[in-house]
Amino acid sequence: MPVIKSLLFLLLVCVVVLVSTAGAQSEAEVPLRDQARFYFDAIPHEVPGKELVDHFDEKVALGQRLFFDPRLSMSQTVSCHSCHNLSMGGDDGRPVSVGHGWQTGPRNAPTVFNAGLQIAQFWDGRARDLVEQAGAPMTSPVEMASTDPLICDVLSSMPDYVAWFTRAFPERENPICFATTRHALAAFVSSLLTPDAPFDRYLAGQEEALDDLQKQGLREFIALGCTQCHMSTNLGGNGYYRFGVKHAPEQRYRPQEDLGRRLVMDTISEDYVFKVPTLRNVALTAPYFHAGSAWTLEESVEVMAWVQLDKKLTEQQVDALVAFFSSLTGSLPTIALPALPVSTRETPRPAY
Amino acid sequence: MPVIKSLLFLLLVCVVVLVSTAGAQSEAEVPLRDQARFYFDAIPHEVPGKELVDHFDEKVALGQRLFFDPRLSMSQTVSCHSCHNLSMGGDDGRPVSVGHGWQTGPRNAPTVFNAGLQIAQFWDGRARDLVEQAGAPMTSPVEMASTDPLICDVLSSMPDYVAWFTRAFPERENPICFATTRHALAAFVSSLLTPDAPFDRYLAGQEEALDDLQKQGLREFIALGCTQCHMSTNLGGNGYYRFGVKHAPEQRYRPQEDLGRRLVMDTISEDYVFKVPTLRNVALTAPYFHAGSAWTLEESVEVMAWVQLDKKLTEQQVDALVAFFSSLTGSLPTIALPALPVSTRETPRPAY
Repeated sequence: MPVIKSLLFLLLVCVVVLVSTAGAQSEAEVPLRDQARFYFDAIPHEVPGKELVDHFDEKVALGQRLFFDPRLSMSQTVSCHSCHNLSMGGDDGRPVSVGHGWQTGPRNAPTVFNAGLQIAQFWDGRARDLVEQAGAPMTSPVEMASTDPLICDVLSSMPDYVAWFTRAFPERENPICFATTRHALAAFVSSLLTPDAPFDRYLAGQEEALDDLQKQGLREFIALGCTQCHMSTNLGGNGYYRFGVKHAPEQRYRPQEDLGRRLVMDTISEDYVFKVPTLRNVALTAPYFHAGSAWTLEESVEVMAWVQLDKKLTEQQVDALVAFFSSLTGSLPTIALPALPVSTRETPRPAY
Repeated sequence: MPVIKSLLFLLLVCVVVLVSTAGAQSEAEVPLRDQARFYFDAIPHEVPGKELVDHFDEKVALGQRLFFDPRLSMSQTVSCHSCHNLSMGGDDGRPVSVGHGWQTGPRNAPTVFNAGLQIAQFWDGRARDLVEQAGAPMTSPVEMASTDPLICDVLSSMPDYVAWFTRAFPERENPICFATTRHALAAFVSSLLTPDAPFDRYLAGQEEALDDLQKQGLREFIALGCTQCHMSTNLGGNGYYRFGVKHAPEQRYRPQEDLGRRLVMDTISEDYVFKVPTLRNVALTAPYFHAGSAWTLEESVEVMAWVQLDKKLTEQQVDALVAFFSSLTGSLPTIALPALPVSTRETPRPAY
């Protein structure tokens, strides 16, 4: 896919050069917006493919309740929202998250916003999609520490949940189970799109949606080659690359105990390979990198330029890139806190 | 006050007896609703005294954001909402709450709904009002583990918070400080009223708002003498009584290491004295008692009748009382999740 895109881009450059040579344009340069449109797409307003999912809206409504329900954790203390805080950019603002028993996980919590537009989930892409992803934190001993049967027992004990599951999964004989819980959560998370960022409006033709510094940053972003990895709708989330292509990052950025995708693929060539993180809403999601060790965008940009591209940036370049990143903050969805059903006599009790 | 009310009630009984003797009524019994109106008041729709607070609405809006902001805790993990979950009856459904470092507190988290209608805050009443109350969890080492200056540094580092504090406290030269944080939180919590419970509609004259079993429960509640403690608007929250007036409760209900109000008053007569908890929305707030050790209303009612009133209840009495309690669930406010400002370079980082 990147190869085809590169060829297409070359073709685009040739056409523009020919046109400009013919006197129609004074500079042999592809207009910035056309370059941008080549690499990037706008965040959609609607969930792609939602028409293929039966009872999608009912699944989203149910998933929203599940997302906020701490009873999906063994202690009934930790909910999805605990680490993917929808008030705070869809993550938790910490290097690594705090889970069951105050344990910390090994990697920085990624944002849930626009997560459904990625090729796979988790830093190492070990979950194929949001449905697979949703199961892992609930049953991870360091996160929510629950189990498949416990979650079913908890949810089945409350008549409101039974009704909501039945509405969202009417074709199932037993609508409440771990699989449907994951499906409903995935539907809700897929609905967490943040369209209409200034950058999206610029892509759509609003010239003034980006200021001059942001345009300069976009130009740098393309010229430096950041688009080799951060492309497509999410400016990331679309492929896997080694963190440290040109230089090994300092150990605080790339702890040696986390080999990334190597743990999934088990080939040495995957050492320190991670899914390219999205840059959408990146201004809201510090700290950065899989270890959550860079606290500012300026620091992150300098590190990435050096270790991935063998480039030392000027202060002006850094400022322009960070300004461009600020144009990637979209409209966050308005979320009403759900009223959750009351535990019943049959609801398993919180365990510590 | 209870003495005056008792005298007034006696007077009411005399009047009714006289009226019924005169042939106007066949039974020498005060109508149930009049008895109920004597002891209880409806939850108001508006915060009492809000007109006395300058910029009340701005304080509420700010307080709502603060309530959901985990950055008020040292780890930036625990918010007010963590233990006072507005999706779940305003508490956390656990015997005792989980705070900083997964420590547990000594007492069951009370609901924040209608909390402003109480005479004082905490199980032992050690905070005079919501303003005083709001400060304690933020700086308690087992809860949010922050400090007065840290909270000011965190909030002052974000321009949006500076603007919101200035709007809510325009008369202050330095609008952000620990005192104003507490005032804003108190304003928000005071706004968390749950009016229009079936019981409130019954008090207002809607005869059918309570079914027969609920009315029977109300009759038992008054006849048994529960109203000696659970009276007024909140059916509780209005006075202090010893837990175990007639019999010592089992130790799981009354752990011997918690002497209650004795810790505040330092007189032996206050041993095991606690503020009467509110029964408003009690069906949503299991487990019960200050140690959070009774998981059902049935169990709680039986314990209370025995240890406070020296009475063994029949199954019918228990059922009726529990049915009456279900009529105390009001309309919970609809809360929109706030969009919180982004941490800046100056924001102190989470500490573990």
